[in-house]
Amino acid sequence: VGVDRYDGSTPLPTSVDEVEFFVLPLVLGPGPAAILDQLPRLRVVQALSAGVEDIVPLVPPNVALCNASSVHSTSTAEMAVALVLAAQRDLVAVSRRDFVPDARLIWPSLADRRVLILGYGAIGRAVEARLAGFECEVRRVARRARPDEHVDDLAALPRLLAEVEIVIVCLPLTSATRGLVNAAFLATLPDGALVVNVARGPVIDTAALVAEVQNGRLRAALDVTDPEPLPTGHPLRTSSAVLVTPHVAGRTNALAPRLRDFVHDQVLRYVHGEPLHDVVTDGY
Amino acid sequence: VGVDRYDGSTPLPTSVDEVEFFVLPLVLGPGPAAILDQLPRLRVVQALSAGVEDIVPLVPPNVALCNASSVHSTSTAEMAVALVLAAQRDLVAVSRRDFVPDARLIWPSLADRRVLILGYGAIGRAVEARLAGFECEVRRVARRARPDEHVDDLAALPRLLAEVEIVIVCLPLTSATRGLVNAAFLATLPDGALVVNVARGPVIDTAALVAEVQNGRLRAALDVTDPEPLPTGHPLRTSSAVLVTPHVAGRTNALAPRLRDFVHDQVLRYVHGEPLHDVVTDGY
Repeated sequence: VGVDRYDGSTPLPTSVDEVEFFVLPLVLGPGPAAILDQLPRLRVVQALSAGVEDIVPLVPPNVALCNASSVHSTSTAEMAVALVLAAQRDLVAVSRRDFVPDARLIWPSLADRRVLILGYGAIGRAVEARLAGFECEVRRVARRARPDEHVDDLAALPRLLAEVEIVIVCLPLTSATRGLVNAAFLATLPDGALVVNVARGPVIDTAALVAEVQNGRLRAALDVTDPEPLPTGHPLRTSSAVLVTPHVAGRTNALAPRLRDFVHDQVLRYVHGEPLHDVVTDGY
Repeated sequence: VGVDRYDGSTPLPTSVDEVEFFVLPLVLGPGPAAILDQLPRLRVVQALSAGVEDIVPLVPPNVALCNASSVHSTSTAEMAVALVLAAQRDLVAVSRRDFVPDARLIWPSLADRRVLILGYGAIGRAVEARLAGFECEVRRVARRARPDEHVDDLAALPRLLAEVEIVIVCLPLTSATRGLVNAAFLATLPDGALVVNVARGPVIDTAALVAEVQNGRLRAALDVTDPEPLPTGHPLRTSSAVLVTPHVAGRTNALAPRLRDFVHDQVLRYVHGEPLHDVVTDGY
C-alpha cells in the first residue's frame, strides 16, 4: 500500500490518478475536501469525525463514505455521562466558592431515572454501556427500529418522552433529524427533565429549548448548540438551568491512539476486500 | 414489633427499658445519641449514615453497630464518578461563559486511565460497577486483602500508586486511615494524577495535598475536606486544580426510598434472627 500526504497547501501529489482510499483530516479544511472529485479511481472517503453532514455533499457518486463514530464513541459517550452527572448534581453551582448548601436541599440522582438514548449507533451504544452501573432504566430510539436490540423507531417518541426524565441526543444531523427536538417534543417531557446533546446543535430547535428552560420547566446540558459558538449573552449561556460546553466532547487523549488503530484497520480491510466499519453511504 | 419515636426534644418514651433495636437519625443530633447507654436491653444500633466515626465511641459494649453504607453507596459512588468526569474534562472551567477553547487543547479522558479504588466496601464496589463501561482499568485496595476479589491490602500501595492516574478514596475514617493519604502517598503518584475523596476529609493530609496541587503536580476533586466546611480563602478553594463540593454526595432523591427499605429489612432480619447487613462492630 502506497501512502501520500496532502494538506491543501502543497502541489497535488503525482499519485492522484491512483488514489482509491482517501483519509480526510480530523478538522476538515478547504484543501483536501476540495479535491475529492479529482480522484478518478477513488472508492472510499474515510472521515475522521463522527458527524459527516458537511462531507456527504462532497462525496462523488459510487464512492463509499465512512465516518469514525466507533472511535469517537469513547470520548463522546464519556462526555454525555459527564454532562448528565454534572447537571443532575448541579456541579458547577455547588462547587462555587460562595455556595452554602441549605441542609434541606437534595439533588436528583442518575439512579432511578428513566433515560432515553435518542440515536443508537456506536455513540448511543457506548452511552448505554457507561450507564450500565448507575441503577437507571434505559430506553432506546433510533431512526430504524431494531426489535432484537429493544430499539424503537421515532414513532415511539410521544409515548417514551412522557415517561423519561433524561434524554441524551446521539443522532446524526440529517434532513430527517434537523429540528427533531422541537416544541412538541419538549412539551411531552415531564417537568424537570434534562435534555443532553452531544450530537449536533441543529437537532434541537434552539428557540423551543430556550422557551422551556427560561420558564423553568426543563434543564439542558449541551456540548453542541445552534448557533455554535453561542454569542455572548445568548439565553442558553445565561440560564442557570443550562450547562454548555463548547463542542469539546471528542477532544481527549482517548482519540489519537484509537484513530490510528482504526485507520490502519480500515485500510487493511479495504486492501483485503473485507467489509469496512462505520459505513455511512456504501457507494462501492 | 413495637415502634417508638424519640427526637431528643420530648420526654423519653416509657419503652426505653424494652428497646432492642435503635435507629439513629440520619443527621446525628445530641438527643437520640445521648441515650444509647440508658437502654438496658439494647442489642443493635442502626446508623443511617455510611461514616460512623462519631458513633462508634457512643455504642455500649456487647451492642452491635450497623451503618447504612450499602444504601449510601448508590448516591456516593455516583458522586465519585461525577467528580472524576468533571475533573478530567475540567467541566467547571470549560462551561464558563468566557471560556474560549484553544483548538489544540485536549483533555484527559477517563478511558484508558488506571484507577485505584481505595476502600472496597459497599461504596468502593459501587464505584467499580459504575466505572465498568468506561474503558478504564481498575485496581482495588482495602484494609484487608481479599485475593478472591483481586483486592490488595495497604502494603500494595507503593507499587500501585506509582502506576495509577486516578485514586478514589472510599475508606472509612478510623485511627488506621486518618492521614493515610499523606505526603509520601501523594509523592508516589505520577504527575497529573487526580485524587478524589468521597469518604471523610481527614483520610487525606490536607497540607500535603495543598502542597501537591499548588505546585501543579496533582489534581483533586473532593466532596469532603479537612476542615469542613473550608474557610473562605482556603488554598483548596482557590486552586484551579481542585474541584470542591460541600459534602453533598449522599444528598439525592435516591436515598430516602433506599433507606426506608433498608431499615425495614434490617428490623425484619433482627426479628427473625437473621444476619444483619452493614455490620461495623458485631457486639451481639
